[in-house]
Amino acid sequence: MVVLEVAQFEIKPGMEQEFEEGARKAVPLFRRAKGCTSMKLLRSVENPAHYRLFVRWATLEHHTVDFRESNDFQEWRKLVGHCFAAAPNVEHVHEAMDGF
Amino acid sequence: MVVLEVAQFEIKPGMEQEFEEGARKAVPLFRRAKGCTSMKLLRSVENPAHYRLFVRWATLEHHTVDFRESNDFQEWRKLVGHCFAAAPNVEHVHEAMDGF
Repeated sequence: MVVLEVAQFEIKPGMEQEFEEGARKAVPLFRRAKGCTSMKLLRSVENPAHYRLFVRWATLEHHTVDFRESNDFQEWRKLVGHCFAAAPNVEHVHEAMDGF
Repeated sequence: MVVLEVAQFEIKPGMEQEFEEGARKAVPLFRRAKGCTSMKLLRSVENPAHYRLFVRWATLEHHTVDFRESNDFQEWRKLVGHCFAAAPNVEHVHEAMDGF
């Protein structure tokens, strides 16, 4: 079952551009991650320091096991981790209904 | 600028199917809403009582003004509101980066 990882990040004041740049540099890490089929970064309108990363995985374990135990996960955190104001909030969702 | 509404709902225990059924019945309300181009319901893997509704709008005001002030918004809340365990959390996001 396809799952969407929804990771929420609160970024330290003034580090938004650095965070976005780090996320851009991390695109190849996700591109080559097993089972990963898309990655997008969303920014909150109401609170511009609040971002969401949407990453689509073929199965939950492609993210929670394969990716998280890989060197590329460490690399990802090196690129963006210093911009986090708090620990990220990560949840996985699956589609309950495709309205249109 | 296209915005994605991310609405988070905590559903009362045992009312998940009723909530999903209400959301299904509400599809036509969103289909005819001005500026609304897609609507999907996502369910959390970690907490199955936690849902997210993703609704894509042509502009923020199509949601916050046109839809929220419409009779169809009242209709939507009639279909699902009794299933909410708490007030929904609604945020709007725009795409900061389309990785792939």
